[in-house]
Order: sequence, then structure tokens, then C-alpha cells
Amino acid sequence: MKIAVIGGVAAGMSAASGARRHGKSAEITVLERGSAVSYGACGLPYYAEGRIADWRSLIVHTPETFQRERGVEVRTNAEVVELEHARRRLRLRDGGTASYDKLILCTGAALHPPPPEGVHTLHNPAGAAKLRQRLDDAAPGRAAIVGGGYIGIEAAEVLRARAWRVVIFEQRGDLLGREDSELTRRIGSHLTRCHVDVRLGQAAKSFEADRVNGEPFELVLLAGGLRPNTELAQQAGIALGRTGAIAVSDHMETSTGGIYAAGDCAETTDLVSGAPVWIPLGTTANKMGRVAGACAAGARERFPGVVGTTIARACGLGVAVTGLSPAQAKAHHFRPATVWIKAKDRASYFQGHPTEVQLTADKGTGRLLGASVMGYYGVEGRINTVAAALQARMSLEDFAQLDLAYAPPFSPVWDPLLVAAHQLRKLLH
Amino acid sequence: MKIAVIGGVAAGMSAASGARRHGKSAEITVLERGSAVSYGACGLPYYAEGRIADWRSLIVHTPETFQRERGVEVRTNAEVVELEHARRRLRLRDGGTASYDKLILCTGAALHPPPPEGVHTLHNPAGAAKLRQRLDDAAPGRAAIVGGGYIGIEAAEVLRARAWRVVIFEQRGDLLGREDSELTRRIGSHLTRCHVDVRLGQAAKSFEADRVNGEPFELVLLAGGLRPNTELAQQAGIALGRTGAIAVSDHMETSTGGIYAAGDCAETTDLVSGAPVWIPLGTTANKMGRVAGACAAGARERFPGVVGTTIARACGLGVAVTGLSPAQAKAHHFRPATVWIKAKDRASYFQGHPTEVQLTADKGTGRLLGASVMGYYGVEGRINTVAAALQARMSLEDFAQLDLAYAPPFSPVWDPLLVAAHQLRKLLH
Repeated sequence: MKIAVIGGVAAGMSAASGARRHGKSAEITVLERGSAVSYGACGLPYYAEGRIADWRSLIVHTPETFQRERGVEVRTNAEVVELEHARRRLRLRDGGTASYDKLILCTGAALHPPPPEGVHTLHNPAGAAKLRQRLDDAAPGRAAIVGGGYIGIEAAEVLRARAWRVVIFEQRGDLLGREDSELTRRIGSHLTRCHVDVRLGQAAKSFEADRVNGEPFELVLLAGGLRPNTELAQQAGIALGRTGAIAVSDHMETSTGGIYAAGDCAETTDLVSGAPVWIPLGTTANKMGRVAGACAAGARERFPGVVGTTIARACGLGVAVTGLSPAQAKAHHFRPATVWIKAKDRASYFQGHPTEVQLTADKGTGRLLGASVMGYYGVEGRINTVAAALQARMSLEDFAQLDLAYAPPFSPVWDPLLVAAHQLRKLLH
Repeated sequence: MKIAVIGGVAAGMSAASGARRHGKSAEITVLERGSAVSYGACGLPYYAEGRIADWRSLIVHTPETFQRERGVEVRTNAEVVELEHARRRLRLRDGGTASYDKLILCTGAALHPPPPEGVHTLHNPAGAAKLRQRLDDAAPGRAAIVGGGYIGIEAAEVLRARAWRVVIFEQRGDLLGREDSELTRRIGSHLTRCHVDVRLGQAAKSFEADRVNGEPFELVLLAGGLRPNTELAQQAGIALGRTGAIAVSDHMETSTGGIYAAGDCAETTDLVSGAPVWIPLGTTANKMGRVAGACAAGARERFPGVVGTTIARACGLGVAVTGLSPAQAKAHHFRPATVWIKAKDRASYFQGHPTEVQLTADKGTGRLLGASVMGYYGVEGRINTVAAALQARMSLEDFAQLDLAYAPPFSPVWDPLLVAAHQLRKLLH
């Protein structure tokens, strides 16, 4: 049995590993159009910053180690340009072909339209290297970031760390794309304190290497406009979902039997709303890839979906969200009640600092719907606790009784999550 | 309506607050035999260490602020010596009486038998103050700690921080009381590296101020032997549970209608095994108290139980457990499979360090049963994520798909929890 994987970053390599785990004798090939595989793309902003000396330290496997340790053939600079499923054959840019019995599409996402010449991105190692070079060579000046999603926010931290003045242009009225004005206000005021100028509702109608909407900048970075790469899939008649990404089953199979899709090119299910979502993230890509690979090799694994957990560091401040924002909850016909609380993240005599927690639940059913956490300590742990509760469809009532770890070096006796839960209960009764 | 609360530390003060919230016009009285109320007892080790200048900074409410802000009468140095439920009357040590319609017992726990003269404890402010004085006055020498539970482990950190050499005597073969030899070995080897001599299976058959089993020490600290204070309850014919603590319903009501119990004197339910447990902890005491107070005031709140989450810092290392250990799982007729894994807690370029995770699940049902986490970062967050999953009776299969937060400053792309889950899945299939 031959399994071919198109794309060799997060989803692709996890797919090949998953396939190998369940298909001991399968012939597995990864076709990657770039020159490197298996790198941690989420580390690229920190490479650009200079925190990592060489971006190649983000590489988890080289084609050689992957071949040796997992028995998977990895071909780089191998761009698939045509998918002839009737013949189970792939045509490559260099004129070669590859055949398969099962195919896994891990074609990722790209900036659509591609940025104008000279505009920086953090989308791939080459882009990050260019930005790094620029930060190393030029004196700090004024930079514009186009996009206020989590990549824009991380990019702002990187540029501030290198002493650039920063303006973020976000065409929507909100940051992080959650239609959450209160979250936006809180992140925005932190960014402002860190001398990042956040311009909401301001689309970058025209931008080039040194100019946004006519305003001059020394550096322009595009941190938005990511779209799933679905050309090959569409060409082969594979159905896209409502989000514009490739539609897949729980087993990561596309509308065409025998062809799977995983990672940034595929959509998944939001476990809170039940609706399809497209949230391109490395961690989800890895999970999807693993399941796609296993299923392509004949196992019956499932990827149920996500609850939309995201975290980013905004000029030192941890900002994390999971589940639905109040506006998103309303759009999905819930009746959300929400609270924001501020509480110490641990005892004062253990460097305790205020942390902010937003918790949202449905008035109709009492079900927990989502959360945001902002702070300097324990942010990821608190959002993960909510993520587990969301995945379990927990009620606010049960959540308020969680048996969370307590000792002064780690947390206050009433964890901020429980403080928020008790506040929110009052709005539900 | 008169509500009396016996005991004014964690459970008692939460009970009074809970009663006030639901009984706006109730006459609420807290009777505390000591001279202070509402202090964070879990901070006492750190006061003894010198990290907190004055133990009174651990006080959350004084009787006066509590009276003023919540309209609750708080009487200190008011020891109840007799409970005459037929007359709804309490007799105090000073000859006075107090009457009630509803009564909440928050009598706590104490060292039984009380320690010999000169032996230190961390059980109350007076004990912690004596230890602090001793550490301030004496040159560091050799100290013996009797008990290898979490208080013994915290005490060892405190004494090492003050440059004492430390020996822990633990009569059982294991630390933290979980019958977990592997967890014990790992904590033990860390303590050994920190120059703490751990003597397992060695009961302190005889100990006094300067001697344990005949061996001389400059300081002896008792960190075990805590028993629930149930004298008043027993005198009034209230049933104790299997654990020796006061048996209560989900509404915290005892076997005698109208009398509630909460905190360290009461038992609760282990939500994983379904069995009664007695785990005296400040955080649980607060939750129980809140529900007891609400129910005494006529509300119908519920405290479902705990999953046994505990955390302690052992010479800088965070050690946390939740749910059942493999041995405990066996004792409750599960068929546990368990793994220990070691993985980075976040990206290397963000001070990532190894963290160790143990995960246990039931071979029969696939249900997640318990976990341990040891490390220097994110320990409380990871154990809390498992605690939420346990409370939701999550399967290992679902747990392995959790949508956990990922960004290099906060975690690796495969969170150590997910690495452990994927390892453990292999043992279940």
C-alpha cells in the first residue's frame, strides 16, 4: 500500500508518522514543495526577534532522520501541480510523477493575495529570515503591522523588543477576530501602554514596502490574509466546506474516498457551537495529521474538533481565549451571560499579580461557552482548564466546583477561574 | 432565623458568607475558639520561612470587617464545649451560651495526639510563630520532620531555605500518601539532591523536642497525625463516616437535620472512585463552607465532592497529583494502566525545562483515572486540566484530543499532557 502526503510541515509530518504507526509495511512518501520540512512555524516570530540564533533550530526532523527513524521517504522541492485521482497519480512541477493508493492533503495556508514586494511576513522561514536581517541591519524606526490577529500581536511584541515604534492596522473593529469589544479594549489598552498604536476599523486599503494608506513607514509587515491552499483539492473536485477550507469527516476523509486532508488547508468542527470552523494552528494541524495518517493506513481514529483555544504573548502579557465570545455565542443562538473579573494569580508573597478572566455561559442551559484569560502567570493553565471543561460540555454549575490545585506558590485559595464562575452564577439564577 | 457557625477559619468564614448571601435577614454568628479568624493557614510555612514578615498579613477578614461588611457577628476566644441540639443551644467554655436554628460545624482538624512539649508544628499561627522565632534565633543545625505528606514536604523546603539539614521520617513506604512507589522515588530523588534525607518505612516511634527514635536533632517538627475534630459532633450523636470524619450529604447536612458540617472536620466524596474520602485542604474547606452556609440559609446548593487535587512545592520543584494513583485505582477495582513521560514544559528558547507527567486510565472502560505532574513551570495548570477532565469523567480517548493552548512562550506544540495521553493509549489498545 502506497500513502502519499502532500506537504511536510506540521500536519504532513504528523500524518506520515500516524500512517507509519498503523501501517507498518506501507510505502509512505512526503512531498514538500519547500526546501525544509517539519519546522515549528510558530517559532518564526521569535527567530525574527533574535531569541533564536538560527531558524534551523526550529526543525524537528530533517528528511534524513525522518527517513531513517520512521522509514518515510521525504522529498523536498517537490511541488505537486496536478492531482489525477482516477489514476491515483500526482504530477510534479519538475515533470516527475508519484503514485498512491491513499492520499493526504496537507497543503497548508498562504497569504492571498501574496504581499507586494518588500512587505515583510512571518509566514515561512524565508520571510522570517528577511525580517530578522532587516531588524539586524536597520536602525529602529516606525513599523506598520497589517492585521490584529494573534500573529499581528506577536509581531508587535517582536518589533517592540527591537525598539521599533509600531502601528497595528486592523480593518475589523476588534482584535483576535472574536467580535469581543471588551477583550479588544483590554488588549488594546495594554498595547497602548507598550507604545503600540492600535488603529481599529482601519483597513490597510493600499500597502507596500514603505507605505500604508499613503502614510510612510520604515517597515511594513503583513500579518493577515491567510487563506487555505485548496487549489489541488478543487482541481480534483474535492468539496470545500462553508469556511472555504477542505471539508473533512471525523476521520479526516474528504468528499473523495481515499483522499484525506489535515492541517491549515482543512476545516474542522467547533465543539461548542457544532459549526464548521477554520482555525489554522500548529497544534491542531498536528492532531489532525496524526488522525489522517492513522485512518489512511486503515485505523479508525477520530478527530472530534476544537474548542478554539488560542494563546499569544502581547508585549509580555499572556492573552488566551477558548470557546465562544459573547457575540459569537449570540450568533450561534445561545443566550450568553458573561463576566470579567480581576484577581491575583497567586499569593502576593509569591510574586502574585492581577490576572483577568472572562467567563461566558448560556442562560438557557447553564452550559459553559467560553473564556478569556489575560495575565503574566498561569494564563495557559487556566485557559486549558476551561478548554477541558468545554470539550466535556460542562455546566457552569459543575465548573464552579472544580477541584483546582491550591498552594501559595501556585495560586490563590479561590482560583480566579472559580471567582469568575461564582460571579457568573449570579447572572444565571 | 439564627445560624451559628462553630469555627472561624476557612470553612467557617465561607459558611457565614454563604449563609448571608442566601439569608439576607438571618442572624449569623461565628464562634471561634482561637483569637484570630479567617487566616490563610496554607501560608503558615512561608511565614515561618520569613517570606512573609507578619503572619497577620495572612488574615483575609478581621472580626470587625466581617461584621461591618457582611453583617455577621464574629466572636473570638469563644470555645463551644457542649452542643445541646434538643434545645438548639451551645454552651461555651466561659459559661455563656448561644442559641441557633441552624448550626454549621467547622471545627477543623488537630494533631492527635498533640505533640510533646518543644516539638514544632505548622498547624496554627502560634506554632508557625514559634518555628519562625527558632529559625531566627538559632544557628542552622539538623532538623527532623515527622511525616512525608505535603506539609512535611513544604516544611522541608522551608527548613532548607534557612540552611538547615533535614531528615524526613515517614512511617509508610511512600510520600504524599498515594501508595505510589514511582512518584515517591521521583520526589525522593529530588529531595535527596536538595540534601534532604528521606527515610521511608521509618515510623517516628518516639519523638520529643530534640530526639527522634533516640537520634539527636536540634529541631523536631511534626507534620503528620492530623485528625478531624469530631468531639462535639459525636457528643451530639452525629454520625461519622468511614474515614472517621463527619458524614455529610451533597448539601453538607449531617445525619442530624439542621446541623451541617464543612471543612477539615467533614468527609466528602472522591468523584473518581465514588468512595468517601477525608482530604483536609483550605480550598475544599472554602467550597464546602460556601455550600453549607447556603443550604443552612435555605438554598439548595450542592457540593459534589473532590477529585483529590493537591500541589506542593518541594525544594523549588512543583509536585501535583489528582485523581487516583495506580495502587489506589486497583484498590477501587479499576484495572489501571499508567505511564510516566518526560517532556519540555515549553520551547527551549523560552526557558523550557523538562516536566514529568504520570497519567493513569482504566483498561476496562478507557476512563481517565489520575495524574501526577512534577516540574518548574505550568505544574498547577497541567494538573488542573486533568482535574477538570476527571470531574467530567472524561475518557483517555477524548483527553488525548484536548484543544490546549499553544505558543512557544507557554508550551510545546505537543503539550506534555498530550504526549502522556498518546503513550498511554498504546497500553489500552
